[in-house]
Parts: sequence; C-alpha cells; structure tokens
Amino acid sequence: MDEKDSSRILDALSSRRTIVNQCLTSHIDTIGPDQLSEASNHLFIAGGKRLRPVVCLIAAETIYNQDLSPFPYQGLIDSTGTSVNMLDAASSLELIHIFTLIHDDIMDDDDLRRGVPSVHQKFNTNTAILAGDILYSKAFETLGNSAEHSSNVSRALTSLATVCSDICEGQALDVQFGKMDLVSIEEYLRMIELKTGVLFAESAALPAQLLGQPPEVIDALYNFGLLAGKAFQIYDDLLDLTTPSSVLGKQRGSDISEQKQTILTIHATNSGVDLNSFHNDQNSCPSESDMDSLVEALEDSGTISYAHELSHDLSTQAKQQLELLPSNPSRELLSDIVDFFCQRDH
Amino acid sequence: MDEKDSSRILDALSSRRTIVNQCLTSHIDTIGPDQLSEASNHLFIAGGKRLRPVVCLIAAETIYNQDLSPFPYQGLIDSTGTSVNMLDAASSLELIHIFTLIHDDIMDDDDLRRGVPSVHQKFNTNTAILAGDILYSKAFETLGNSAEHSSNVSRALTSLATVCSDICEGQALDVQFGKMDLVSIEEYLRMIELKTGVLFAESAALPAQLLGQPPEVIDALYNFGLLAGKAFQIYDDLLDLTTPSSVLGKQRGSDISEQKQTILTIHATNSGVDLNSFHNDQNSCPSESDMDSLVEALEDSGTISYAHELSHDLSTQAKQQLELLPSNPSRELLSDIVDFFCQRDH
Repeated sequence: MDEKDSSRILDALSSRRTIVNQCLTSHIDTIGPDQLSEASNHLFIAGGKRLRPVVCLIAAETIYNQDLSPFPYQGLIDSTGTSVNMLDAASSLELIHIFTLIHDDIMDDDDLRRGVPSVHQKFNTNTAILAGDILYSKAFETLGNSAEHSSNVSRALTSLATVCSDICEGQALDVQFGKMDLVSIEEYLRMIELKTGVLFAESAALPAQLLGQPPEVIDALYNFGLLAGKAFQIYDDLLDLTTPSSVLGKQRGSDISEQKQTILTIHATNSGVDLNSFHNDQNSCPSESDMDSLVEALEDSGTISYAHELSHDLSTQAKQQLELLPSNPSRELLSDIVDFFCQRDH
Repeated sequence: MDEKDSSRILDALSSRRTIVNQCLTSHIDTIGPDQLSEASNHLFIAGGKRLRPVVCLIAAETIYNQDLSPFPYQGLIDSTGTSVNMLDAASSLELIHIFTLIHDDIMDDDDLRRGVPSVHQKFNTNTAILAGDILYSKAFETLGNSAEHSSNVSRALTSLATVCSDICEGQALDVQFGKMDLVSIEEYLRMIELKTGVLFAESAALPAQLLGQPPEVIDALYNFGLLAGKAFQIYDDLLDLTTPSSVLGKQRGSDISEQKQTILTIHATNSGVDLNSFHNDQNSCPSESDMDSLVEALEDSGTISYAHELSHDLSTQAKQQLELLPSNPSRELLSDIVDFFCQRDH
C-alpha cells in the first residue's frame, strides 16, 4: 500500500471517528454520579481508533448504496420505512469495547492503556468494575434506543448479547491458556475468534441487522468482520515482537515476557524454538537485542512467515465475503481497511 | 397474616421457584469453560428465593387472566399471536440479580453470601468479575431468545438495559453514601429505588411488555414493583437490627457496625441519637445486648415506628397499583406477597 492510499484511508477513518466521538460523548455524559462518570469517561477521553464503530458506519454506507452527502447516519431508513440512528448503534460497539478493556486490565493487572493509567490504577478496582458494568448496560440502552422498537432492533440486541457472552468465554480461555504449557493453533484461533473476532463481526453485521437486510447479507458482513478481526489480532501479535518499543508505545515483546500464548509462541514451540530464555525472569524486560535474537530465531523456524501468511490468508478470505454486497466506494474502503491494518508498521 | 395464609403463600412461591430453577439450570449450563461455568453456577446452586422471576410469572398469570392448569409459561401468546416463553424471560431477571450479587460482594468485600463463600472468595476476584460479566450477557441473550424477534422483545430488552444502568448508579450512590456523614431521607430513597426497586419493577412489568399490553398496564406493574421493592428494602433494614443473629443467618446489626447508611441510621441521626458508640470499633461486632440497647434508643426516638410506617405506606401504594389489572387469584397473590415480605420475622 503506497503512501497516497494510506493517507486516503487515514482521512476516511478520521472523518468518521470525529462524528463517532461526538455521539459517544453524549452517551457517556449521561452516566452518574461523579466518580463513576469520570471513570467511565477515562479511556474514552484517552483516545482510541474507534475502529469498530467506524467499520459499522462504512458497512452501513455499503449496503445503503446511495451516493448521499452528508451521509445521513442518524436518519437511515430500514426495510419497513423506519428511521434508524446508525451513529447511536455504532457507538454501542465502542461502549462494549471500552467495557472489555476496563475489566480485562483488572484481570491482566495491566497498568497502562492508551498511554494513560488503566481505570483501576487511576481510580480503584471497585470503581473500575462498576464503570465497566455501566458501560455494558449503556451499550444495550444506546442500541435499543437507536430506532423505534422492532424485530430488527430485537435481533441486533440479541446478537450483541451473544457476542458479549462469546467475548467473556474468549477472555476466560485467554486466562486459562496463560497457565497451560501446550495450546494448539486451533485452540488459539478459537480463543481470538471469541475474544476479538466476534465484536468486529457484529460491528460489520449490525447495520444489516438494523436495516432488515436478507440473512445472506448479514452473514456475509458477519463473516467479513470475524475473519478480519482474527487477521488483525494475528498481525498485532507480530507487531508486538517486530516493532521497536518506541514506535509501539509499550514494551516490545511484552507478550513473550508475560508468557502469553500467541500464534507465534505456539508455532515456535511446535518448531522446537526454546522460548524459556526470554521469559525466565518475569521481573526484567527483555532487551531490544534479546528481541532481535528472538525474531531471528523465529525467522529461521518459519514462525514469522507462518504468521504473516495466516494473517494474509484470513484478510483475503475476509475481503471475499464482500463480493455479495453492492460494489461501491464504501465497499472498497472496507476492503482497503483490512489491507491497511494487516500491513501497517505499528 | 395468619399461619394458614403464610403457608399458602410459601407453597405458591415454592412451586414456581422449582420450575424457575429448572430453567435457570439449562441457561447457566451453557456457560464455559470449566472454571467460569463453576463460578457462574456457585451462587445459583447455593440457593435464593428467586423472588424476581416468581413475581414475573405471577404478573404474567394476572394479565393473562385465564384459568389454565398447568399454566403455559412456555407458550403464552402475545398481542400479535406470537408465542412467548415467559419462563426464559423470568429467568433473565435472576441472571441479572446473581450478576449484581457477585460484583457487589467484590466491591463490599463481603465473604459470605447465601450461606456459602462469595464467588471472589471461593474462586478469585478475576473469575468473579468474569462470571458476573457473562451472567449479565446471558440475561440479555435469554430474554432476547424468549420469543420471536419483535417490537415487544426490543422494548423489553431496552427496558432491562436501562434498569441495569440504574442498578449501577444505585450501587455507586450506596458506596458514596458510606463515605458521607449526612445523607438525606430523599437521597437514601432514591438510592434504594435504583439499587433494588427498578429490578423488582422490571420483574413485574416484563410480562406486560412481552405480551404487548397497553402502556398503562406496563406502568401500573412497573410502579407496583418499584414501590414493593422499596418497601422490601426498608423492611430488610429493620430486620437487620431487630432479628436475632441466629434467625437472621448473619451478624445482627451488621449495617450499623459497617457504618452503612440506612433509613434507620439517617432517621436516628436526624433525631439526635448517637450511633458512634455502636460502630467506633470496626473490628469487633456489637453484642446482642448492645443491639438491644440500640433498638430501645431507636424506639424512643421514633425511628423504628417511622421505618415500619414507611415500609407499610409503600406496600399499600404498591398494592393500589394492581387495581387497574384483572381481578383474579394471581393478582391477590401479588398483593399477598407484598404483605408477606413486609411482615415477616426474618
């Protein structure tokens, strides 16, 4: 992807992120009392790409398939003639995402998130639990109020609930894997499907559910998000190891030093690479040169190229799902976003 | 209420509790992996009255107003001819209730619940957070799948989400009040309305929402539950102080020794009673004779009779809400349940 393409995609993401942020502000600001409000706002204010709501908006444009400017996210018309506020619906996805970050940080005892102290560090664990809980219910409230009550809204809410159950099971598996010596590639892929994939899947499918599109359109978008989400996660695993700490914004190789199971550690272990020397001492971070040696070993074992190919295959499969949808610039953008996030440097 | 009446009400609660338990088992058993499943099951297995789902079922019988035996909870027909599984819908309320107990116990650092170690004590805090989270989403999934997707289901899901946001705000206020010297009666009543009242309100209103009843019926049942829930909570505050520990199943006067704000402490403080002598030493529990002296002081200050009257007034107002509904034995039972829980010994 050349610089011009990257810049075009970044602009497309940025313009949609701006309106998502305005909408999110209005919903998070309804939370009270004071300390709970601040804690719920903390990670939202700290930043974030808003990739899930932005994917939702672009998927809505794709299936709406009309050349409208400005695009009427707040007044899209569904299959029964009812007005849908797609901006509210999209925002619900980020509320779920922030809830998972807050609770995951408690469970993983992570002190930093989005460059600021995690919520339980900044406030306390009790406040962080409650902030996650209220963002969770605000997500369902926001989605439930995004259109007149209808079978479409009912379907979308139920689908989001199933996704949230999946995310919890994915997190439980991730925690469990940290205590296991051997995890198979299949088990790992299932875990990231649950922990990461399904929320991207719902992000892409939500507009089709709310607009009352046929099941095959909903399924195509769901599978697009599911495959893309897994491709992103595997590429993230790669970046954690191959990007300098200064560019990554956190300690390079933290997955390895924290003994987390990733596609890389599993493939490397299966290929006979000894990872123990990189995480024997949990209190000291591996140096950049340690990491360079590890990357070299993983290149020799074929691990790096295996992960690159897997991420690439998943993103190709993701993009193929879009063929069922109307061909328009928004569909191209969905496709480009997958390439962008699976080819980026950090 | 005489012994015969009490026995009739207990039988009515018990028979419905049995079928609710069967339904809950089938939903909680879908949770995986192993440790998360055990943790999610822990408080459910430990017991509980299932008062919220049982109230939901009796409210359903009241508005359905047909003499059917056995009552077809799993095949009730809504205003559009769609079949509703009211047993699933009712179960979702208990899933929310158990979620709140698990997270509240972490926040309040309570070691015991329903006579067994709390979930974070039995497992660990991380597992307890995640068990609460998955029960939360299972509740929405269960309710969302209780009937074909429709505007009625959408309304019920959105209403449950709003109730959950209210519960979180109520819990935040409860925590906040524990650090405040002065809380007004109005502030306290608002807190218990949010923390306890709204879930009872939703329990009573849910069948009317799902069956597509007119707004005035939904509102009457919602207000019935809201007022009854507040009456129950105030009566609970009274029982905490006036019932011997052996009967209560936990330390008598724990609200006072833990310096929790209740309707009693607020009224007593406003009436010039010095409560400090009862909670100066947080490490030692007050003795039964200390508690007897306190009760005597609160009788003299009019606090006990004030709380009794308030609980009685709220339960009277709750029962008045039922006048709009069809007059039948189930409506009588709803009314009797309020009296039963606001006149019981423990």
